[in-house]
Amino acid sequence: MDYYIPPLARLIEQFEKLPGIGHKTARRLAFYVLRSPEGEAEKFADAILSAKQLIKYCRVCQNITDTEICSICESDRRDRSIICVMENPKDVVSLEKTGEYHGLYHVLHGAISPMDGVGPEDIKIPELLSRLKDNTVSEVIMATNPNIEGEATAMYISRLIKPLGIRVTRIAHGVPVGGDLEYADEVTLSRAIEGRREM
Amino acid sequence: MDYYIPPLARLIEQFEKLPGIGHKTARRLAFYVLRSPEGEAEKFADAILSAKQLIKYCRVCQNITDTEICSICESDRRDRSIICVMENPKDVVSLEKTGEYHGLYHVLHGAISPMDGVGPEDIKIPELLSRLKDNTVSEVIMATNPNIEGEATAMYISRLIKPLGIRVTRIAHGVPVGGDLEYADEVTLSRAIEGRREM
Repeated sequence: MDYYIPPLARLIEQFEKLPGIGHKTARRLAFYVLRSPEGEAEKFADAILSAKQLIKYCRVCQNITDTEICSICESDRRDRSIICVMENPKDVVSLEKTGEYHGLYHVLHGAISPMDGVGPEDIKIPELLSRLKDNTVSEVIMATNPNIEGEATAMYISRLIKPLGIRVTRIAHGVPVGGDLEYADEVTLSRAIEGRREM
Repeated sequence: MDYYIPPLARLIEQFEKLPGIGHKTARRLAFYVLRSPEGEAEKFADAILSAKQLIKYCRVCQNITDTEICSICESDRRDRSIICVMENPKDVVSLEKTGEYHGLYHVLHGAISPMDGVGPEDIKIPELLSRLKDNTVSEVIMATNPNIEGEATAMYISRLIKPLGIRVTRIAHGVPVGGDLEYADEVTLSRAIEGRREM
């Protein structure tokens, strides 16, 4: 039975596709959009389109950016001898918020996970290796998630980098094992960076 | 400090405006949109715009519709002698789902609430009264929410309608007092319609 008119049904359906949004919440959000003041729906739609259109990967570190090279890679106040390797752009934001890290980043956009069909060639590992060729980098911190896939990815990358004579470290397990970096608080992340150890 | 690039910050901000969506959820949804497959973001944006553009109020019952007159008002299988007055379009959907009501509707788009500055002239009461002029309607069911504002609105409207010689009923308090019609289950709503009483 069709209880909703088509434009409303389509909007509810689109909200339902979002992660963690069920049917009742989708319905509530759709009705909110309908009732929203003039111009608000247009701003919302435009934010979606322009985020999707303007945001690309930094040519150097693969983090998301709206410029060719991101502001961190462009900055002359960052320590260029150290690269922190992370799985996702939001992990970079979490670490930046601690204010304790001043090196560069490299975003893998995922972790090696044979169960999900993600191999080393599916994430930004080749891009990381090519950044290490000019000998400016002396340390790579593996800050992938402290779960099975993240540990395996850290291990895999460390085996590729160590032969190059570059120090490879792993963030300390101050971050709760089995969790996601996204939910770690700033202090825990700071401790994790401080307590990093040779791997 | 700006941890997010502007297009992403704008998208997060738009998601945060939605009811019940906090900063962390907004961030998660924004990143989901960024990662979504080609064309999905466009479909989402289009659903928002077209819902807002195509949906208007039915000229008769004030329910939302994408045609001049809604399908319920147009239908020749509905009992035109009875009008169920509800606060919101989603309440109509809830009652339609019970399959037990075959009359017409009238959507007020709110309830009288002096605390929020909503008076009788701010909701669709004049539109309801003008529907009662041609003597086809013999009963008006007040199905506003079973809370203070809903009760007050039902009382206010019943005082206007009774002098016209039209029967005015109130849905039974099978629906939990103090709650919202949106969350009532179909059976409870059915009982509420069955047990309606003179007011």
